[in-house]
Amino acid sequence: MNEKEKSPKSRQSSARGTYQKRYYKKRTPVTEHTELYPEKHSRNQSAQLKENKKAAVKIIPLGGLNEIGKNMTVFECSNDMFILDCGLSFPDSDMPGVDIVIPDFAYVERNRAKIRGIVITHGHEDHIGGLAYLLKKVNVPVYATRLTIGLIEGKLKEQGLYGKVKLNTVEPRKTVKMGCMAVEFIKVNHSIPDAVGMAIHTPAGVIIHTGDFKIDYTPIDGKIIDLARFGELGNKGVLALMSESTNAERSGYTHSEKTVGESFDKLFRRAEGKRIIIATFSSNIHRVQQIVNSAVKYGRKVAVFGRSMVNVINIATELGYLDIPDNTLIDIELMDEYESGEIVLITTGSQGEPMSALTRMAMKDHNKVNITSTDFIIISARPIPGNEKYVTKVVNELMKSGADVIYEDMYEVHVSGHACQEELKLMIALIKPKFFIPVHGEYKHLKKHSELALQMGIPEENILIASIGNVIETDGTKMGIVSQVPAGRILVDGLGVGDVGSIVLRDRNHLAQDGIIIVVIGLNRSTNRISAGPDIISRGFVYVRESEELMNDAKKCLTETLHKCSPAELREWTFLKNKMRDDLSDCIYEKTKRSPMILPIIMET
Amino acid sequence: MNEKEKSPKSRQSSARGTYQKRYYKKRTPVTEHTELYPEKHSRNQSAQLKENKKAAVKIIPLGGLNEIGKNMTVFECSNDMFILDCGLSFPDSDMPGVDIVIPDFAYVERNRAKIRGIVITHGHEDHIGGLAYLLKKVNVPVYATRLTIGLIEGKLKEQGLYGKVKLNTVEPRKTVKMGCMAVEFIKVNHSIPDAVGMAIHTPAGVIIHTGDFKIDYTPIDGKIIDLARFGELGNKGVLALMSESTNAERSGYTHSEKTVGESFDKLFRRAEGKRIIIATFSSNIHRVQQIVNSAVKYGRKVAVFGRSMVNVINIATELGYLDIPDNTLIDIELMDEYESGEIVLITTGSQGEPMSALTRMAMKDHNKVNITSTDFIIISARPIPGNEKYVTKVVNELMKSGADVIYEDMYEVHVSGHACQEELKLMIALIKPKFFIPVHGEYKHLKKHSELALQMGIPEENILIASIGNVIETDGTKMGIVSQVPAGRILVDGLGVGDVGSIVLRDRNHLAQDGIIIVVIGLNRSTNRISAGPDIISRGFVYVRESEELMNDAKKCLTETLHKCSPAELREWTFLKNKMRDDLSDCIYEKTKRSPMILPIIMET
Repeated sequence: MNEKEKSPKSRQSSARGTYQKRYYKKRTPVTEHTELYPEKHSRNQSAQLKENKKAAVKIIPLGGLNEIGKNMTVFECSNDMFILDCGLSFPDSDMPGVDIVIPDFAYVERNRAKIRGIVITHGHEDHIGGLAYLLKKVNVPVYATRLTIGLIEGKLKEQGLYGKVKLNTVEPRKTVKMGCMAVEFIKVNHSIPDAVGMAIHTPAGVIIHTGDFKIDYTPIDGKIIDLARFGELGNKGVLALMSESTNAERSGYTHSEKTVGESFDKLFRRAEGKRIIIATFSSNIHRVQQIVNSAVKYGRKVAVFGRSMVNVINIATELGYLDIPDNTLIDIELMDEYESGEIVLITTGSQGEPMSALTRMAMKDHNKVNITSTDFIIISARPIPGNEKYVTKVVNELMKSGADVIYEDMYEVHVSGHACQEELKLMIALIKPKFFIPVHGEYKHLKKHSELALQMGIPEENILIASIGNVIETDGTKMGIVSQVPAGRILVDGLGVGDVGSIVLRDRNHLAQDGIIIVVIGLNRSTNRISAGPDIISRGFVYVRESEELMNDAKKCLTETLHKCSPAELREWTFLKNKMRDDLSDCIYEKTKRSPMILPIIMET
Repeated sequence: MNEKEKSPKSRQSSARGTYQKRYYKKRTPVTEHTELYPEKHSRNQSAQLKENKKAAVKIIPLGGLNEIGKNMTVFECSNDMFILDCGLSFPDSDMPGVDIVIPDFAYVERNRAKIRGIVITHGHEDHIGGLAYLLKKVNVPVYATRLTIGLIEGKLKEQGLYGKVKLNTVEPRKTVKMGCMAVEFIKVNHSIPDAVGMAIHTPAGVIIHTGDFKIDYTPIDGKIIDLARFGELGNKGVLALMSESTNAERSGYTHSEKTVGESFDKLFRRAEGKRIIIATFSSNIHRVQQIVNSAVKYGRKVAVFGRSMVNVINIATELGYLDIPDNTLIDIELMDEYESGEIVLITTGSQGEPMSALTRMAMKDHNKVNITSTDFIIISARPIPGNEKYVTKVVNELMKSGADVIYEDMYEVHVSGHACQEELKLMIALIKPKFFIPVHGEYKHLKKHSELALQMGIPEENILIASIGNVIETDGTKMGIVSQVPAGRILVDGLGVGDVGSIVLRDRNHLAQDGIIIVVIGLNRSTNRISAGPDIISRGFVYVRESEELMNDAKKCLTETLHKCSPAELREWTFLKNKMRDDLSDCIYEKTKRSPMILPIIMET
């Protein structure tokens, strides 16, 4: 008996060649799940169990695997689909000029009829930053907690989508129906209030997606992650756990947000008589609350700078997530009316990036804040990977102005929002999933997280490191990658979404490396003779005024090339252009060991 | 009595306006130095003390302050000058296409007649990498320890300077005469053998420059930093200490190189049966020795990959700094004849950068090494600041091939070559300098190092954070910045030294951000009419095939601009070009929110 005959699902699964092979590779001894579909969502359990045989569930990550950012996952069952998160990521250094990166929505667009909605775990850019772009293509209801909805509203207003999308507020422990699936919101701790993980109740079983989380036993809002509900679900049997992996390389526990408040208190004492400037992520409302608390305690007024910070503080205050006593906030314009020692300035920049406003202050390019030795600056953030050198530059410049700058780990002015190894293990221990899919991380994070799961007894064949575009299918007993859908990155540059691709990037990187040389000749079509030029113009290559000899040599080289061309060759413009490009390229490389882009232009005259 | 009258040096000091002010700002109560010029160098002490009044000593840093890299300092006294180190630095991300950065030699060139020689502290690129460029301009004798001379020889050969420069080997504790100054070499520990600090005996007193150093009580070659000599000099009285600041932010002590060997031993056991690949800095010969030692212990053969690694191993073996037993080294071509478990591959890349060969292996672009799950890779290095994200990418790719990758701090496979805070304090305690000048570091490092000195009782006014180009003058009792000489960065790109400046970089960065649009028109000079075009060509802007509408709009906009031009305006090419640039720029920005470089070209026909 071959494997195909063994399987009750062979007919449907054989639709894809890879399905058969990969699916069964992941097959494991079946452990009993008494409740494939939890009680509260399965009044008609037997009917659904019957349907179950047909209704395999698909999990399709479209972002957030093998990368940090643009988190997005599609869940699919029969004719129903929903989307979990839709984030952006920031461009790498090899994507010059690109503003943001969003997931490829092709698969979602193609299946628009099936989409029942979008659930969002929390209001960070890497979870909501792609939403407006998605909603422009597929307008479906959005479900999220109250603060998250508030932040999404702000984004939709910016994009002219406000009022055009159905936004639904969901409380933790509540469930949203998505066709044959149901999504339960479960409170987690993170570096933004109102973050949730999701328990996805499907015909194949319960799949838990943690979203971003940490375990904070002393959170600022008093609301500890709902460990009990995770445990309860775990006890009833969870088919798969998708858990975030950002800090999977870090041992131990992430410190409580409260430790930062204690550090602020100490530093505020030390900063007596000086103006305090704190740069942080605007979305870290608990951090802002702690700054406000310290300010009140030490009799300081709070000024706020940065559009993103002002926005978030307004939304959070309005929704009751931030408690700022009367007469605490002052307009930044009024700062000068107070002594330095009476002020705290909270600041952030574009995209909530804490360094950008601070950068302008450091470079003396800020019209409202002038840094002096009476400033005490706290950088309450960690540089985004890749930004370390840039942050160092800002610190240097701030220090040169004579200011005190607190930026090092030793002062505990920042804690992570992500679970470290002990917390990740606790989550696995509570949920005891049959299958484990590490998410949100580069390969090294996913790998490390897998090793933790393996150590805790999840069999290797039940651990799945996937890639974006993979279609992970499960029927409740088996799980595997069965096929692939389009997935990747769409680059947003200015108003252009997707018009910068690999060719444009390759050109930009080439131009950046060695600049461009443009060669123009005029060619008389009727006589087939050079009527003008060759003229040579360069940009980003050499400083021409000091390189006359080189430019003359280049011109000489081109003139020779053209002289050698037969009338027939002069008629073949493609040949002629290639010839000019190759000859000039060789000449330039020999003299400079550089390879600028060479662009021959022939004008017909 | 004004300050000028107070000073016995007012006549000469008044030559510069700033001298007076800054010099005396740094003036401090004079503590007695019984020996301004140490015994062994001052047979005719009283005569020299007389001369001393005229012979102020100048210290002129030309690199290494407010930056990491391109270390270079000029010492000057009467008609004598010498140079200490001449390094390179690597380009920042805002210098695309630039290969290396070297100091501005203008001041040295202008004073070529005075230069008695160049002393080099050790053979790292940031101390010798600019040397060949300097020697091409100013051919003076070079003095360094044996291994350093060996490495310099290699560099001079590459640059066609071999045999044209006088290279002198100096043993530690020996002294080189530089006119009225003398430079004593003093053994220090660092991540390359044969590193030294320098005691510069001048008429104004002894100035100690540490070079790069750490304190290693168990160095691989058994040669501990010559703390005794530093102490002896300190006891006799040191005028000024210039101490390196790279690790001034790190508390505690830097671990001994020996700890890395112990880690290797543990990891070699763990890697049983697998091929071990270790990436490290080629210049870290002690590290290479420890790899060889572990290989021999575990019965493995050693293959070496990377031109820089092969070079350094050859030089170090020849000079006796590396001890490789017979039958240990094998040719990389013969690797396949051995089992995976019988091999260690040591690798590095261009400029000794450990990641570059590994990168090619990770990207499957290496013709000799194919990474699989039977590889055990150890990255025995720390990413250069700014390279963190790139290293992470390599780690991810290596892991995807199934290899074990050891790269984290927890495994102790790398230790720093630079002194941490406790070592820096020890150096200050031994030397007890009157003046303290932190060197080798960004501003934040210099600042932190200054704070350490301050804590140890050096008065604030005797601590000097300088910048490159500052002329620091001292007569043995006072020290201050008296003037400024040209200093900065010269960019090397291919064969070009200095032909890439700020304008070219600005253009490269602009081109990288949004690409370029070239507009060509033909203009008939006699009729003053447009005879051809406008033609539009773009690179790095949009993918033209998918943006036809945009390009058509751009052309329309330009045609309108040209139509509106009067015949007089068509004659004013500068006006015409600006007009085309501005109009097209507005049109493009409105439609795309991007600002590509726009280059109008007018061809006379």
